[in-house]
Amino acid sequence: MSLSVSRSGQTTTLTFNNNVVLLSVGACTLLGFRSAVRYALQSIQGRKKGRKGEESGGWENATKGDDFREWGGELLKWVTDYRDKCRDIHVISRVEPNYLQRGLPSSAPTTGEPWTAIMSDLDSKILPGLTHWEASNRFFAYFKPHASYPAVLGEMLCAGLNVMGFDWIASPACTELEVVTLDWLGRFLNLPEKFLGSSEGPGGGVIQGSAGESATVVLLAAAVRKQKLQPERTKMVVYVSDQTHAIAQKATMILGIRCHVVKTALENNFEMQAADLEAAIEEDVANGLCPIAAVATTGTTSSCAFDPLVPILAVCKAREMWVHVDAAYGGAYACLEAYKSKFEGLEEVDSFCVNCHKKLLCPFDIAALYVANRRPILDALSLQPEYLRNAHSESGAVVDFEHWQMPLGRRFRSLKLWFVMRRFGTEGLRHHVQNGTVLAKYFASLVEKDEDLEISVPVSLSLVCFRWKGRGEADQQRLLDAVKATGEAFIIHTKLGGKIVIRVACGGVEQTKDDVLGCYKVISRELKKLK
Amino acid sequence: MSLSVSRSGQTTTLTFNNNVVLLSVGACTLLGFRSAVRYALQSIQGRKKGRKGEESGGWENATKGDDFREWGGELLKWVTDYRDKCRDIHVISRVEPNYLQRGLPSSAPTTGEPWTAIMSDLDSKILPGLTHWEASNRFFAYFKPHASYPAVLGEMLCAGLNVMGFDWIASPACTELEVVTLDWLGRFLNLPEKFLGSSEGPGGGVIQGSAGESATVVLLAAAVRKQKLQPERTKMVVYVSDQTHAIAQKATMILGIRCHVVKTALENNFEMQAADLEAAIEEDVANGLCPIAAVATTGTTSSCAFDPLVPILAVCKAREMWVHVDAAYGGAYACLEAYKSKFEGLEEVDSFCVNCHKKLLCPFDIAALYVANRRPILDALSLQPEYLRNAHSESGAVVDFEHWQMPLGRRFRSLKLWFVMRRFGTEGLRHHVQNGTVLAKYFASLVEKDEDLEISVPVSLSLVCFRWKGRGEADQQRLLDAVKATGEAFIIHTKLGGKIVIRVACGGVEQTKDDVLGCYKVISRELKKLK
Repeated sequence: MSLSVSRSGQTTTLTFNNNVVLLSVGACTLLGFRSAVRYALQSIQGRKKGRKGEESGGWENATKGDDFREWGGELLKWVTDYRDKCRDIHVISRVEPNYLQRGLPSSAPTTGEPWTAIMSDLDSKILPGLTHWEASNRFFAYFKPHASYPAVLGEMLCAGLNVMGFDWIASPACTELEVVTLDWLGRFLNLPEKFLGSSEGPGGGVIQGSAGESATVVLLAAAVRKQKLQPERTKMVVYVSDQTHAIAQKATMILGIRCHVVKTALENNFEMQAADLEAAIEEDVANGLCPIAAVATTGTTSSCAFDPLVPILAVCKAREMWVHVDAAYGGAYACLEAYKSKFEGLEEVDSFCVNCHKKLLCPFDIAALYVANRRPILDALSLQPEYLRNAHSESGAVVDFEHWQMPLGRRFRSLKLWFVMRRFGTEGLRHHVQNGTVLAKYFASLVEKDEDLEISVPVSLSLVCFRWKGRGEADQQRLLDAVKATGEAFIIHTKLGGKIVIRVACGGVEQTKDDVLGCYKVISRELKKLK
Repeated sequence: MSLSVSRSGQTTTLTFNNNVVLLSVGACTLLGFRSAVRYALQSIQGRKKGRKGEESGGWENATKGDDFREWGGELLKWVTDYRDKCRDIHVISRVEPNYLQRGLPSSAPTTGEPWTAIMSDLDSKILPGLTHWEASNRFFAYFKPHASYPAVLGEMLCAGLNVMGFDWIASPACTELEVVTLDWLGRFLNLPEKFLGSSEGPGGGVIQGSAGESATVVLLAAAVRKQKLQPERTKMVVYVSDQTHAIAQKATMILGIRCHVVKTALENNFEMQAADLEAAIEEDVANGLCPIAAVATTGTTSSCAFDPLVPILAVCKAREMWVHVDAAYGGAYACLEAYKSKFEGLEEVDSFCVNCHKKLLCPFDIAALYVANRRPILDALSLQPEYLRNAHSESGAVVDFEHWQMPLGRRFRSLKLWFVMRRFGTEGLRHHVQNGTVLAKYFASLVEKDEDLEISVPVSLSLVCFRWKGRGEADQQRLLDAVKATGEAFIIHTKLGGKIVIRVACGGVEQTKDDVLGCYKVISRELKKLK
């Protein structure tokens, strides 16, 4: 038996009895070395000697409950090891394009492989290509996701049950738990009663895949509602601001509707102004176009700005336009007393979407879409082929969510939200949401004390936007690139009023003041080097 | 300590020290009684006495790796127990509408709860509301899904990593493993080289959520490609047959495009005829409309008919129409030599979609969409907001899948397909696909020998369509209802040529000839009772 390890640049190669196993590039050498060696050895030995009849993998083992429990247990451990080990390593993947195409065979194996071989590749081939969104406390880019452990188990259970939930009868628990948990969430977020499934009216919540899917569904409903008035979609207009997430514009591209982008400005904190919206609408109406909807955002992606709902509603309701609130990220903060006033006006909006996979401790994908009236959505999306007709649906006694969404199939996604709400409780969830704002305020205090940096817009939610004070665009980009290259903090930029602004989004489940301080120190250190 | 159990109708109630725990309605009493009692007792004791500091659940425990591994292990066991126990019980849920709204509190708990309480509710409240799509060998409705154990673990890992894959740089492994596994699958299914990501040309595969989402994406691309010729979508037409899945029509409703339904007939086994398609196109063109695409199906939902691709292509290509092949269910069978001729013509089609969550051992949702040319899709769906700009994408060296789909976000879904292909190998997968056809032939042989039954259309793939011989529609429905009521076999109907036909879809991972024989015996027994 012979074992040798060689390193060349960022690549570590392990050779065992003349079997070469490419162990890793980059980060993996730092973290997964021991377990990678373990799995690699098991894999090689497994292939040669067989391990609990594992040598051939294949049909028999792969369908056994024992195999599932044993290797499921290993994978659970792998996930916790991953999260523990990757908290403080280089956060951004450093692989080159096509690294994996080069590292994996071009065809699937003929015979099933043992789990040892698969898990060895997880360490050596998958890990180096990951940017650690979830695991790393150095992740301050985009919005930090939070796949809490209970939610991960919810996703596993959803896959294990694999029931379909397109209509009630397909699996009543799937539909009903969705109604119950979305009502729980709605109450937690202080949403108006009309959005709850248990309310008397025609409103209710439904799980969609994403805020983008949700926007597409409601804008379609808004279009269908207006089609007697204006049969051509190319004459219909949806209004967004230049801070609205690109998903809204993508929705109009899908639907074939015009998108009118209303400009925002620094002096209004990049919030959409009702007067500007009104002017845009009037201009379009004068040109023979038909305004059908506006998308207001509570917590924009670039700077967490809140569009003022009450004046926007006044403008839109006068023209019977649909008002959709994209609260993909910001919606979670509606659970906090301090943000209550920011959501004023919700009673009058037509729809509201919050991503449970952003702040609410669920892994992607689960977006909660609430509508004041389900009818326009059913009108736009209902179809009932013969093979889906059933007595319960025809009686009208039940909800069939297939008619509330674009695809037909749907998984049992409410399980993960249910696990989260039960295991954390509303206290735990609120604590988590609050924690992000505390960290952001702390980071902002560090920026404010730093004479080289300046805050760009008022700190909102868990986000801080700042610039290298007194420097031009090229220097902002240099600073950003320098910080990213360290792997000690992942931050990204956006543009506000045409200028580059650096974003630091705080608030991971495990993030602490120390992590935030660490991020600040990296920025400060790199800035001094560039001076 | 006092414990009492009472049963009333289908409801079993367990009372422990004056704590009433609704144990179950229906099926659960048959299967989950012992484990339900166990969790219920643990739950009550846990709440009162505390268990490993579990009494409060909440933030601390819920974020711990130990808790995840311990209760993850319990849940893995719960899943295997569920599948073992539910193989042969009443397959269709018998709960009444709103059973769960009545059985769960109207708000989330304030304090986090222990896992014992949550798992107790899984048994007592969720289980009775499940129709056992995956677990039951008595499930012959729709198309039997197959969430193999390795794929369930892949879904868990995907959630545990929770990396985003909207563009390459967000997590290179996510994008690259998708390219690799879809190429593996493409080769396994004998797809033309042009559909592979590693091919020289502009084609490639991408994972979508469903066949419906896939159809919407490609029909949007077809529309955008024609919009210089015809700017109004209401003048554009997509052609489907009356056997095409409703998803295609739903896609046209979303996109605002006309849908022309071409009739099929018994004498052609309900396959779309190129001559009929051509006549439909000519009629529309004469009326000033613009044909943009046709959807051909290889394995229709009602009877697994195969639309003939070669003549359909000849008609469509003459008019530069997009031809999409919906192989949601049937595509998996392209791995079998016996079905090769059914897929003749694939070299010329523009896109092809197969659901890995139907026959290919993955849980919902994972649809593989292959396109001959990515450009029209990128033209229709690309948007690049500032916060997503990055050097790798701008260099053009990498694939950014966000532009191939409607939503922005995307999970690491290729993991589950990768686990399946490695753990089963192509031999294992092919064995599974083949097995369904063997079971269907066996079931058909039983029907053929039965003087009370008659086969309605030639047996195709794993599906058998038949009728109660010499009887009218009402009797077909009576037979169907009688069988469903037994819970011993779940079968559904469809309509072919205006007539009710009973469908038996075979082929679960664990289904055997005995299960199929069992299904036949129930049908035969119930029929005799109705005679």
